[in-house]
Amino acid sequence: MSKNHRIMSGMRPTAKLHLGNMMGALMNWVKLQDEYECFYSIVDWHALTTGYNDTSGLKGYIREMVIDWLSVGLDPEKCNIFVQSQIKEHAELHLLLSMITPLSWLERCPTYKEQLRQLEGREINTYGFLGYPVLMTADILAYKADLVPVGEDQAPHLELAREIVRRFNYLYKPVFPEPEALYTEAKVLPGIDGRKMSKSYDNYIAISATPEEIRQKVMMMVTDPARIKKSDPGHPEICTVYAFNKVFAEEERVKELEESCKNAKIGCVECKKRLADLLVKFMEPIRERRISLEKNPELVNDILNTGAKKAREVASKTLEEVREAMKI
Amino acid sequence: MSKNHRIMSGMRPTAKLHLGNMMGALMNWVKLQDEYECFYSIVDWHALTTGYNDTSGLKGYIREMVIDWLSVGLDPEKCNIFVQSQIKEHAELHLLLSMITPLSWLERCPTYKEQLRQLEGREINTYGFLGYPVLMTADILAYKADLVPVGEDQAPHLELAREIVRRFNYLYKPVFPEPEALYTEAKVLPGIDGRKMSKSYDNYIAISATPEEIRQKVMMMVTDPARIKKSDPGHPEICTVYAFNKVFAEEERVKELEESCKNAKIGCVECKKRLADLLVKFMEPIRERRISLEKNPELVNDILNTGAKKAREVASKTLEEVREAMKI
Repeated sequence: MSKNHRIMSGMRPTAKLHLGNMMGALMNWVKLQDEYECFYSIVDWHALTTGYNDTSGLKGYIREMVIDWLSVGLDPEKCNIFVQSQIKEHAELHLLLSMITPLSWLERCPTYKEQLRQLEGREINTYGFLGYPVLMTADILAYKADLVPVGEDQAPHLELAREIVRRFNYLYKPVFPEPEALYTEAKVLPGIDGRKMSKSYDNYIAISATPEEIRQKVMMMVTDPARIKKSDPGHPEICTVYAFNKVFAEEERVKELEESCKNAKIGCVECKKRLADLLVKFMEPIRERRISLEKNPELVNDILNTGAKKAREVASKTLEEVREAMKI
Repeated sequence: MSKNHRIMSGMRPTAKLHLGNMMGALMNWVKLQDEYECFYSIVDWHALTTGYNDTSGLKGYIREMVIDWLSVGLDPEKCNIFVQSQIKEHAELHLLLSMITPLSWLERCPTYKEQLRQLEGREINTYGFLGYPVLMTADILAYKADLVPVGEDQAPHLELAREIVRRFNYLYKPVFPEPEALYTEAKVLPGIDGRKMSKSYDNYIAISATPEEIRQKVMMMVTDPARIKKSDPGHPEICTVYAFNKVFAEEERVKELEESCKNAKIGCVECKKRLADLLVKFMEPIRERRISLEKNPELVNDILNTGAKKAREVASKTLEEVREAMKI
């Protein structure tokens, strides 16, 4: 791989991936693998920051996640796919960076207090939870990634990573590039109830959903609550089905639907049926790849092993430089 | 090694070791190696908690430390001597334990606030500094050590380690024994100025001191300030020379000196000369071993490599159990 920039990104294996993850992040990753040298990691150690007290599903989620990734189009010939905990260098770098990271930087991180509030009562106020951004920084720096695809909510973490880089380079030697945010047009998909699609709201459609499940979920979608009868004009801008169409349907089709809805020419049930057809068709090749991968656990293992080997090669070289710079 | 209990202890390579370290800790370690299976580690990662901003001396101190250890009688045939940073399992276990360690346990640790106060202005309030007891716990648990020789000041750290063990065993599986403190009679040696012997007070006699240096330092020792002339009766209980004699001289000799001092039969200069002779003689075989080891860097490397290999064997087995228990 001789691409000019290096990208690092990860996902926590804490739940089944859903269409929101697929359209918001994964499809973007698929594009990036053609343009950049990409390291995509299933960050299982990160999953412990909030889920240390129940790890029973972890291995299953890891496996499901790789299969999801591969199904939607990540190609191990084009990018490196690996499980974080298989690369011990992340833990070593995390420890070394922890020594130079002022406590106040972590305490001040806006996402820290926000998450503490959200997860109140779950006993997550641990040392590791506070250090989450240090581990994320280690993930990025282990590969000297210079680009990190981030959503707006993760911008503070990346800023922290940049601060740690500057501090390291200043204290020892300029080993690391300052990673920059790669803001990409993220397609936002609501959940079937109109809120953010999320496991915790149980309003998601899984990437692994069967055609029947997809149809069922689409039929449950919240539309314009003011529209009682088919003859009432609809308001597509507040309709979940319409939001899905905007992401999955062709532009022309979207316009057509918008008109029909506003002019009461199409009913919600019919509209949902059409969306269900569209989604089932869209997901068909993904589903086929999923099924074939599920039947081939050895292939999945091979892909993870190859990915880990490549990741380890790069990370161990970085760690050598880090130790040399720190004179340790 | 088929000894019944396993011991883990470490020292930070942040300064030359002195006679205080030798009589307070090392001579105790030498005894323990006959009775227990011992893991003695030069904890260079710990040195970063307070010394991350100047690591230029680290490698030199590590080398000096091994040589000191071997010179005073640690025997690589009887115990495992290794450098912490060569055993990556410590970093991995530290990361895993960080996930289950409540922040409040660390913030409440009495030594934490105490050290912060002492080292004020040195910018040590980092994430890694706060996590010091977690790393210490990882050091102990990597070897499932059940006994830890501690001074009274380290008792809170060991209590924290025990709490982390209980939490881990409760959350996952009973993998670890609760390490217990091994309180041993520590021989306390003052510095030549009568305060605690310490690098920061520059009042120490290094293990590596030449006979000339030893004599010089002894002649500088603070005695009874009220004793101006030899004919004044002395107060051995406040005299540094006497304190040294109590540690190094035979009991009978100590009594004799005490009498002579109280009855003004021996002057301070004469008394110091005798102590210097005694110390030089005591240190002679140690010094000889030191010189021979300094001439044989390959031997020192071999000892560290063998020690690391043994340590890694044990630690990697422990980590396998840990991962299995945590289902990661």
